[in-house]
Amino acid sequence: MSTVQRIQFYTAPYSPYSHRVRLALDEAGADYLAYEFPNTRTKPDWYYQINPRGRIPSIAYGGPDVPPEEPSPESAKLTESLALIEFIADIFPDSGLLPKDPILRAKARGFIQIYDSWIQPPYKSAFFLGEGTEPILQAIEKLQAALPPTGFAIGQYSIADIAVAPFFVRMLLFLRHGIGAYSQADGDRLREAFASEKFARFRQYVQDLESRPSFQKNWDEAQQVELWKSPPKFRKE
Amino acid sequence: MSTVQRIQFYTAPYSPYSHRVRLALDEAGADYLAYEFPNTRTKPDWYYQINPRGRIPSIAYGGPDVPPEEPSPESAKLTESLALIEFIADIFPDSGLLPKDPILRAKARGFIQIYDSWIQPPYKSAFFLGEGTEPILQAIEKLQAALPPTGFAIGQYSIADIAVAPFFVRMLLFLRHGIGAYSQADGDRLREAFASEKFARFRQYVQDLESRPSFQKNWDEAQQVELWKSPPKFRKE
Repeated sequence: MSTVQRIQFYTAPYSPYSHRVRLALDEAGADYLAYEFPNTRTKPDWYYQINPRGRIPSIAYGGPDVPPEEPSPESAKLTESLALIEFIADIFPDSGLLPKDPILRAKARGFIQIYDSWIQPPYKSAFFLGEGTEPILQAIEKLQAALPPTGFAIGQYSIADIAVAPFFVRMLLFLRHGIGAYSQADGDRLREAFASEKFARFRQYVQDLESRPSFQKNWDEAQQVELWKSPPKFRKE
Repeated sequence: MSTVQRIQFYTAPYSPYSHRVRLALDEAGADYLAYEFPNTRTKPDWYYQINPRGRIPSIAYGGPDVPPEEPSPESAKLTESLALIEFIADIFPDSGLLPKDPILRAKARGFIQIYDSWIQPPYKSAFFLGEGTEPILQAIEKLQAALPPTGFAIGQYSIADIAVAPFFVRMLLFLRHGIGAYSQADGDRLREAFASEKFARFRQYVQDLESRPSFQKNWDEAQQVELWKSPPKFRKE
């Protein structure tokens, strides 16, 4: 294994995609430098050297010790949150972020894809477009069915949990604070559903995700409420 | 490395998601059993033992030699196309499906995420919902910018190319045959754009994807036209 190199992480506190990467870095016990963007989607010109598509999160990996706003051509510019959490698992093979068993690895990655394909679109519809609650409830029922009776997505904590935690914890936070494009009636419907016996396993899972020390380390609920009350446009990155 | 076990692959000829997995299996030189579903989205009851969400592709891995319609409880049931191509790269580490270098691995996975986040939604909008062509052209311009001057997504052929090939080759096939929900004018606009100098690199890339022996091995253009003329509903899995 080659030595881990310099990690310059670009992030923002509102961003659940960036949050995935921070969780992975903290779980792995990585040394890293974090550059925090403010609560806006506009990026300065220099950032396009890191990510030509201008999105966060990203990592400049390796290269000399330069200010974050003056990225070196010698660092590798890595983007896209799911690729980044796999990268962190790759460079920290003993972190346990991904198990060694290929079947368990496939289960972890399959769980992420279930989130991405089944949950993300109706999450957006219900919370950011105000298009109704039935699809997201059905989708979470499917995901809940993929969970083991207790513990994390594949039993042990892994990138599967890291990929979904920033979204699910925010979802329940949004509901508690009435943040979102849903109607009053739809909000009540969602709150009632998630409080019901039917979603007990999902509720426990989200509580386990939120209680994880790496999650607590960088979670400021009051700050999140403030940031999302005037939310950046929800996006799928 | 443990020995590779029995691979029972569930697939259908129309499905680009399943096609990803077949390409990975063929690239790796894997021995596998393929069960082909007909051109329909309805699945028999027994299939829900393999995938509780009823989607293809999936793999039953290991376990005894049973008929595909009578899956053994002893096999591992693996689903979701991106998780499956990573799985094949994991169990065939010498296949070259993923390079050993973590930076290149991150680049390959980042490319897949760019496809998934940027291309897939406007592809669906343009081709299956008939909602206009500007977004898909802009998205492909972004993806084209992420390609090296020649060769595959990260230079050498990898899971990055496997993830996108079934979709891009079908996209250009659809256009040649006027298959899709786009208007006549939008179809002309897309054909003209893709024939232009601006998209020369993308065109070359798709040609390279299609020429790959593992792609040619299972590609029947006439069959695809027939299947997609009365298409199964486009879906994001």
